[in-house]
Amino acid sequence: MIAIELNPALAPVAFLLGTWRGEGEGQFPSIKSFRYREEIRFTHNGKPFLIYGQRTESIDTGQPMHGEAGYLRLVGDGRVEFVIAQPIGFAEISLGRVDGQRIDVECSSVMRTPTAKPVTSIGRSLWLDGGTLRYELKMGLDGAPLAQHLTASLRRVD
Amino acid sequence: MIAIELNPALAPVAFLLGTWRGEGEGQFPSIKSFRYREEIRFTHNGKPFLIYGQRTESIDTGQPMHGEAGYLRLVGDGRVEFVIAQPIGFAEISLGRVDGQRIDVECSSVMRTPTAKPVTSIGRSLWLDGGTLRYELKMGLDGAPLAQHLTASLRRVD
Repeated sequence: MIAIELNPALAPVAFLLGTWRGEGEGQFPSIKSFRYREEIRFTHNGKPFLIYGQRTESIDTGQPMHGEAGYLRLVGDGRVEFVIAQPIGFAEISLGRVDGQRIDVECSSVMRTPTAKPVTSIGRSLWLDGGTLRYELKMGLDGAPLAQHLTASLRRVD
Repeated sequence: MIAIELNPALAPVAFLLGTWRGEGEGQFPSIKSFRYREEIRFTHNGKPFLIYGQRTESIDTGQPMHGEAGYLRLVGDGRVEFVIAQPIGFAEISLGRVDGQRIDVECSSVMRTPTAKPVTSIGRSLWLDGGTLRYELKMGLDGAPLAQHLTASLRRVD
């Protein structure tokens, strides 16, 4: 392993670096609301993107629930491009901006495998509130408008 | 952490599980050929997909080169769906089959961010040859047919 300096382009999102753990709550018009435990990691390798990984598990049983992985690209003037793969057979490209310690993005395009659920859009907001990382995720199914789906708050553990 | 049993649907691809390290070689009509060091990980969380992560670095300097992350879904009758995010601002859904200890997939759809390179298709083959994991990756740019791009061989280290 070699020591790798942070790419200067990442300075606006350096507040995300590290391992975060916390809890969240999910809801959607068609389902019963639920709570989950979560870990999020943002790392870097010297290039102008953050490496993103996330996983959630049941608070009660510890059973794995969701997970996703991808890359947050800083492309200049505060613009970000978030490329994310999900194990539900879904991938998204979400575009937006970083403004202070807050990022807002929304899907510009999505892809689904033949067996995937009909997620057609996602909107994500992620911000640092004191030492707490919070996010909100909205989801649209079958072309319907985005509806509130997930909120969580996490603390840095590493 | 709880002990998690392998999902029975993953039996055909259980040969991929673990951490693999090795070296590869890249070529493409428009570039000078190059060699790289690589680590690939396939893990699972009890659900019917493998969690995939990969990164490469320069053999000479140890500097990070490529990386990608995603999920290999087993959807029945030997069919697989590979959802992958790449930090070049690219995501792919590749479909194909597992046959014995070999997987062949090809992009059914791709997405690119506004600043990404014009990769328009990828074909991947991955197989176990004795104790060696080998792969070949072909790439198409700007709608051109797939052309040989990467070959590598890796050994399980964990």
